[in-house]
Amino acid sequence: MTTEVKPSTRERLLEAAATLTYRDGVGIGVEALCKAAGVSKRSLYQLFESKDELLAVSLEERSSAFVAGLLPAAGDGRSPRERILHVFERLELQAGMPEFHGCRYLAVQIELKDQAHPASQVAHKIKANLTAFFRAEADQGGASDPDLLARQLILVFDGASARAGIGADSLTGLVAPTVVTLLDAAGMR
Amino acid sequence: MTTEVKPSTRERLLEAAATLTYRDGVGIGVEALCKAAGVSKRSLYQLFESKDELLAVSLEERSSAFVAGLLPAAGDGRSPRERILHVFERLELQAGMPEFHGCRYLAVQIELKDQAHPASQVAHKIKANLTAFFRAEADQGGASDPDLLARQLILVFDGASARAGIGADSLTGLVAPTVVTLLDAAGMR
Repeated sequence: MTTEVKPSTRERLLEAAATLTYRDGVGIGVEALCKAAGVSKRSLYQLFESKDELLAVSLEERSSAFVAGLLPAAGDGRSPRERILHVFERLELQAGMPEFHGCRYLAVQIELKDQAHPASQVAHKIKANLTAFFRAEADQGGASDPDLLARQLILVFDGASARAGIGADSLTGLVAPTVVTLLDAAGMR
Repeated sequence: MTTEVKPSTRERLLEAAATLTYRDGVGIGVEALCKAAGVSKRSLYQLFESKDELLAVSLEERSSAFVAGLLPAAGDGRSPRERILHVFERLELQAGMPEFHGCRYLAVQIELKDQAHPASQVAHKIKANLTAFFRAEADQGGASDPDLLARQLILVFDGASARAGIGADSLTGLVAPTVVTLLDAAGMR
């Protein structure tokens, strides 16, 4: 049996920020955040310098779940090609969930407009890590131009998540053949 | 000599809505819109039912400029393949401009979250028209699977505009080779 640990004020605020921002956008008010977290404004400002900082930290803390939900385990014995395809299979699966609204990191950057905002910078870093994963696998798999392939894959990732997030397309029969075509063209093993 | 026609109240409001929403997001307030347009709130509500309607109409009115800025002229004698590449050359050019923040229609849909919002519906329709252009050219050019190719091209369009819009990537050396690879794989003439 696991012992239930009551989430701390900090955890409740981070959870509310992540959930409400994803659902309603970065314009969500401090009052709504505090209400959802069951926390006073005073407590929020004791823990975080500003709503901006709360947002940035909430994105940062979600990054391990983001990575775990998409990336294959290190050294799983599969080929780089299969490891890249794994990410897009996971994305297709996630995009089929009713609560999917696209990539939270892309959405935050589009919504904030300001790329110097602390939350934009966190979002940028997390996506740059995904690009670096693609780049390393592309290299490992002998891609003719690993830089180009990595840029293409993150472009497909963002385009696919955005379109699925707004309900403009499902990713079924779309994302896998697109990625396969790009992997083939790069001569990826 | 052209006679300068002073823009009407309606035109000033539509221009302010298009410009400020693109720059600052859909959360822009009615006061800021009225101030930028030099128009009273009363006038706004005499002309538009709501800020939502103003936003939807401003997107609708921008659509002809969007199409003219991207699409080749009808019957320009070029091959379907070249006509598709034209769109992405234009996108690459636009993405290099300092005031580029990505596709305004995608941004509005991501920001509003609500796909039933009148502005989301306008944005959806305008992008569906772009997809239909790709679909018709794909058909004309003998693509092996015109539906798939059209879905791939709009995915690349959205992914590329989004990534350039947030400054995560320039499109140089990225979008053209990606589209060429997809056109080749589809056997497009």
